[in-house]
Amino acid sequence: MQIITSRDNPNVKRIAKLTKRDQAKKEGLIYLEGTRLCEEALASGQTAVEVIVSEDKKDWAEEFTPGIGPLVLSKDVFRKISQTVNPQGVALIIKEPELTAEIPRRKDGKDIYVVLENTQDPGNLGTIIRMADAFGLTAVIVSPTTCDPYNDKVIRATMGSMWHIPIIRKSMDECFEFFENSKTDTLAMHLKGDELCSCSLRLPCAYFIGNEGDGLTDVTTARCSKKVRIPMHGKAESLNAAVAASVIGYELSKLL
Amino acid sequence: MQIITSRDNPNVKRIAKLTKRDQAKKEGLIYLEGTRLCEEALASGQTAVEVIVSEDKKDWAEEFTPGIGPLVLSKDVFRKISQTVNPQGVALIIKEPELTAEIPRRKDGKDIYVVLENTQDPGNLGTIIRMADAFGLTAVIVSPTTCDPYNDKVIRATMGSMWHIPIIRKSMDECFEFFENSKTDTLAMHLKGDELCSCSLRLPCAYFIGNEGDGLTDVTTARCSKKVRIPMHGKAESLNAAVAASVIGYELSKLL
Repeated sequence: MQIITSRDNPNVKRIAKLTKRDQAKKEGLIYLEGTRLCEEALASGQTAVEVIVSEDKKDWAEEFTPGIGPLVLSKDVFRKISQTVNPQGVALIIKEPELTAEIPRRKDGKDIYVVLENTQDPGNLGTIIRMADAFGLTAVIVSPTTCDPYNDKVIRATMGSMWHIPIIRKSMDECFEFFENSKTDTLAMHLKGDELCSCSLRLPCAYFIGNEGDGLTDVTTARCSKKVRIPMHGKAESLNAAVAASVIGYELSKLL
Repeated sequence: MQIITSRDNPNVKRIAKLTKRDQAKKEGLIYLEGTRLCEEALASGQTAVEVIVSEDKKDWAEEFTPGIGPLVLSKDVFRKISQTVNPQGVALIIKEPELTAEIPRRKDGKDIYVVLENTQDPGNLGTIIRMADAFGLTAVIVSPTTCDPYNDKVIRATMGSMWHIPIIRKSMDECFEFFENSKTDTLAMHLKGDELCSCSLRLPCAYFIGNEGDGLTDVTTARCSKKVRIPMHGKAESLNAAVAASVIGYELSKLL
């Protein structure tokens, strides 16, 4: 296996471009770096389009991506394309899982969906995906204005859950059409809603969480069948979006 | 009011040092910058030791910190000490609220405490403080190894709740002594605990959340009266620490 020692090598130049999220996104690809992120993706069945390792990590490639000829870079060249200060010498290019798939349904009809309208913080989005996986939700649905789910901060925050649960991008119109046809309850998370209590909940159910600063749009709130709020006893005006999404996801998961 | 136009002015030099958290901490002070952060602190009764504004924000000082002669800097000098790319021209030095106070108790005995043992992520700590305020907890107790509550990322994530709820630093020994004497239930949040269910809970109650990667130490887990886990239905192995703390806080707050 040849070790690439020049930054001007055309393969290195191509990979360096893909380390920028904008470029990878255009090509429908994701650049993952670091042993944990790469191993999580592979363990969950993602297929590497390309494997990039530094010269001292050839064993890793043999173990985790057998049959794919890795691009082996000198430590120095790897450091130059790396997105981290202390690179672990392991990176993958994988295909973006399809965001435009149909909204899935369970056979028993006990679907729970969290729908995010314009969530902007990658940490919140990642934490919500992790929670949705943990509580057995059917899918995470993101509006076209919600931040890029394949942003590396999102992927990191999901702790592997990124690859466990369908993430689907739909307009609010498409969501409401699907939920109407499938007789799915729609809950708007709203500071002026009724107090959340598991007794008033039924499945299938989709709950809508809005933007961190502005909450849900009035249009979306009005289209939901119910407005709910999480009871609060203190002086805080609101909860963090991921916390709010988690508390409702937890209450709904009691019905599974 | 004189406008300071030189970075070499001794007052500017002193403030510049205090913008570094390490230095401010040594002096028992907090540097806050930006209108939202400063106004939240003032609205909640924090007293400014010093007010720093850029020349175009003298009105702000007159409105929000009347009676305190502000340090007025030229825009250029303010930009130089600022911690942000686009400074808003408003900063305060306040005293650190006492972390070593006694653990407070409610008159009705319905106390809920969240105890953090070695929480490291400032975003998690801030989100937990905000949740604790929202759900009416009595106090947030942090171990000496938990990250600095007055780190600016923590303060930002609390969205003002930093100033609404007591934050107290205690060793685990001090905690258990207090909880024993006050007949407070102690719950260890643990992946091998019993399933959380509001029926088995009673107040007063303290629940313990561990480090993001390692969870609670075995010693602390063993000292708690009960181990609980949040029921999970999916493939995720665990929840984000702030999410876990919030779900338990929410269940306990139903008993208030």
